[in-house]
Amino acid sequence: MTEQEPIYRGKAKSVFRSDNPDELIVKFRDDITAFDGAKKDELAEKGIYNARVSAYLFEYLRANGVPSHFVRMEDERTMIVRPLKMIPVEVIVRNIAAGSLVRNYPFEEGAPLDPPVIVLDYKDDARHDPMINEEIIVALGLMTADEIASVKKTALRINDLLRERIDEIGLDLVDFKLEFGRHGDEILLGDEISMDSMRLWDKKTRTSMDKDVYRFDKGDVMATYAAVAERLTGA
Amino acid sequence: MTEQEPIYRGKAKSVFRSDNPDELIVKFRDDITAFDGAKKDELAEKGIYNARVSAYLFEYLRANGVPSHFVRMEDERTMIVRPLKMIPVEVIVRNIAAGSLVRNYPFEEGAPLDPPVIVLDYKDDARHDPMINEEIIVALGLMTADEIASVKKTALRINDLLRERIDEIGLDLVDFKLEFGRHGDEILLGDEISMDSMRLWDKKTRTSMDKDVYRFDKGDVMATYAAVAERLTGA
Repeated sequence: MTEQEPIYRGKAKSVFRSDNPDELIVKFRDDITAFDGAKKDELAEKGIYNARVSAYLFEYLRANGVPSHFVRMEDERTMIVRPLKMIPVEVIVRNIAAGSLVRNYPFEEGAPLDPPVIVLDYKDDARHDPMINEEIIVALGLMTADEIASVKKTALRINDLLRERIDEIGLDLVDFKLEFGRHGDEILLGDEISMDSMRLWDKKTRTSMDKDVYRFDKGDVMATYAAVAERLTGA
Repeated sequence: MTEQEPIYRGKAKSVFRSDNPDELIVKFRDDITAFDGAKKDELAEKGIYNARVSAYLFEYLRANGVPSHFVRMEDERTMIVRPLKMIPVEVIVRNIAAGSLVRNYPFEEGAPLDPPVIVLDYKDDARHDPMINEEIIVALGLMTADEIASVKKTALRINDLLRERIDEIGLDLVDFKLEFGRHGDEILLGDEISMDSMRLWDKKTRTSMDKDVYRFDKGDVMATYAAVAERLTGA
């Protein structure tokens, strides 16, 4: 891997080409942002914790029959992945009412959602990631109705698996965001699964163990990220 | 009907009890508002045009097998309706991309949508009527999945009927908003169908013939409302 310009620079990760045309290099940076980038900081080691947790969860999902773009880790903040043509739809699975669900609708924060609720957002910072629905996704040509059904089914399967594992470390999986992309004819899970993309609450204290600590200045962000990484991966 | 306090006062209509427990009295006022009430005015006769068009279209739908809360007109701005327990979900059917669809997603204004796109909004001015999806509607207990499917089917049937009629008067039905409510075990179409709730474009000139004339100061609002009422109802 030679030093080069990223082919894509997101808010917290940069993507580079590799010598293998069926692999890309994802570098988890230490940048942390919230509110569509209106709040941003650099927190030492943040990228390492998110890379570690993402790699761990992608491997855990793969072992349970859910493939993703994840290939292997190259170093502690560098992930080798399959190149995906990303679909600009965020798939959010919610088990407990929090965040925008509580702001936008008359749910009480903390209310359990059973069955889980899936919300789809159109990924576009300039438009503030507006909610989208299945008919608009089809009208925009982003996915077919069958593809949406399949992605939602996969998201619910991932939810079952993640909840089981996260429950074991004393946390509730409140909600999380997934992104998918096309790899040949297949739609694969991409992006990351980390403290940036999951909302996690301590089962006993109900305190946030995720990016809400950063968003709302609830405490020591990096101590929180380190604690989740340690409880989940043992490292 | 004695003078009394309305049991509900909306932004453009007031609802009164009647002597018949299975009837309510809806008075179409001359108030016109936009942007969640941030812009408001009173325009003489506006209520009359909207009442006339709503009554005409409710009768047209009934003649074509789609019942609604409409019973009869009492005077030119007073409609007798069945009492509904309103469901706070706006059902928006879109045939041509315009308005929030163009603001929130990469559609070109005027692009045809085929099949039509249905968008569901949670009716709550204080929350700015956020988009909602079927799973959130079910989680809030507003409708069951079967009820949503049935309401959407009815909305598409109404769309077919309205398009046919509105096409005959030289207008395109760009999009429109419906509201439904419970009457016993039945879910019935309620509210109004008027220049406040439909987006209509002249087929030749592409000019607005609806509340967008008011929203965006595009011309003589009352001349526009009068013209649509006249072309549609002959009065």
